[in-house]
Amino acid sequence: MVTAVDRPLAIIAGGGSIPRRVADAALLDGRKVLIIGIDGEADSRIADYPHGWFKWGNIGHLENLLAEHGTRDVVLVGGVKTRPDFRRLKLDFRTIRILPEILSIVVDGDNTVLTGAIRFIEKRGYSVIGAHEIAPDLVAEAGAVTRNVPRSAQLDDAKTAMNAARSIGLLDAGQASVVVNGRVVALEAAEGTDAMLRRVAELRDGGRLKWSGRAGALAKCPKPQQDLRVDMPTIGPQTVDTVAAAGLAGIAIESGRVMIVDREETKRRAEAAGLFIFAFPETGEAT
Amino acid sequence: MVTAVDRPLAIIAGGGSIPRRVADAALLDGRKVLIIGIDGEADSRIADYPHGWFKWGNIGHLENLLAEHGTRDVVLVGGVKTRPDFRRLKLDFRTIRILPEILSIVVDGDNTVLTGAIRFIEKRGYSVIGAHEIAPDLVAEAGAVTRNVPRSAQLDDAKTAMNAARSIGLLDAGQASVVVNGRVVALEAAEGTDAMLRRVAELRDGGRLKWSGRAGALAKCPKPQQDLRVDMPTIGPQTVDTVAAAGLAGIAIESGRVMIVDREETKRRAEAAGLFIFAFPETGEAT
Repeated sequence: MVTAVDRPLAIIAGGGSIPRRVADAALLDGRKVLIIGIDGEADSRIADYPHGWFKWGNIGHLENLLAEHGTRDVVLVGGVKTRPDFRRLKLDFRTIRILPEILSIVVDGDNTVLTGAIRFIEKRGYSVIGAHEIAPDLVAEAGAVTRNVPRSAQLDDAKTAMNAARSIGLLDAGQASVVVNGRVVALEAAEGTDAMLRRVAELRDGGRLKWSGRAGALAKCPKPQQDLRVDMPTIGPQTVDTVAAAGLAGIAIESGRVMIVDREETKRRAEAAGLFIFAFPETGEAT
Repeated sequence: MVTAVDRPLAIIAGGGSIPRRVADAALLDGRKVLIIGIDGEADSRIADYPHGWFKWGNIGHLENLLAEHGTRDVVLVGGVKTRPDFRRLKLDFRTIRILPEILSIVVDGDNTVLTGAIRFIEKRGYSVIGAHEIAPDLVAEAGAVTRNVPRSAQLDDAKTAMNAARSIGLLDAGQASVVVNGRVVALEAAEGTDAMLRRVAELRDGGRLKWSGRAGALAKCPKPQQDLRVDMPTIGPQTVDTVAAAGLAGIAIESGRVMIVDREETKRRAEAAGLFIFAFPETGEAT
């Protein structure tokens, strides 16, 4: 009989190091893993773990892999840079059979694709689990992530920014905002966090925004509509660099709900630049 | 005795044609006017009207002008491109005496300067009146401003955008948003409306945003903190051009609370480009 412990955790892996971090955490916990790399996206180093590969269009192969290993729990994690070009895919027989279902998932835009993909997987008897449930260190506990802590005015800006980010989340617009010296100077929508931060840097370089030294904060939190099991806001070393270039003093995130990619390097760069990273509890204290 | 009708309306004028439009409306109404042009800002054509000039730093001269003509009501209107450089101003004696009061007005940022200026003027016995109270045609009544009216999906986007713009107004962040096919794609903060619209155009040109034909709307409304007597959101011919370049279908404004600069040219360009301009009542119908 295959026991729960014998059943490996399946990690369907996009790019980056996080799929391996999740595998490490599961292994440390005494659990078997099976990383299934998305072809063209996953890091080749998943080969150091029990693994397989999945090509868009070969859902039959994916289902066979999962069934062969007796998996029940599935984690979907890692970046996906290129959307499949459905005109060029070689579809296996299984995929062709379920193509109408897949197409109905794909046509409606980003959030719906993920929600649809989860429904698709769960309908087939699998449980979708968040990467942070396996590797809690991917998210932050409430409090300072860095040795640097926000000073009083910076903490005020961080709170104001967090409230602004939550407000625009309610509009399903974006995940992030920038507040400097009490003023909301940028709100994220379709452009994304990095582009918003570059805009702040440009406005400052152009003299439209003025402050001395480092001030203000980026805040980032999920929109209420996001399914955090498969779609979490992220910050990482690049966020730190862009925040530093914009002249901000730090980054505010929600505890447990924002993924820190490459946490050690993110901390190192933030501390080297004199920036804080601070996690507010999900509700309450940033208001 | 100087009667109320004899007292000219004083129009302290920044750049553009609106100060003259306000003067025309007052004259048509049988009222005398005195345009006081801000040196370096006001159009030289104010010379066609009873007028004077005001240099930053010569508040004594301004007060004398107002007193000489027996004015009581003051309109502040028109763009001010350059902030006075206080280190280079030649201050008259009167200005030097009230300098501490002026400095306390100036140090706190934009909104406070206007609020402070109003308080400064009112403390001296003058009434500050909104340009749109003299020339109601500067703002729109509820309904379509253009012959083009929004189609159903466009009206939905316009409503969603108006609600988003009102939400970010509550954050004191910005006055405008862009919604396309139900999605909030841009929110204005420090960058201003035109830069936000150029961002939407760039995201579309770069393939990050996709839609066919014209779709969606820009919405613009005042922040709750704005004193509409001296600080009203504006749209004009340039807004129309930028909205057209972004591939949007039209512009939503609040009736009575957004100034349309050069209304005839604004309408003409919008209609030529197939865009709508539509005014929602201040509350209610966009929700």
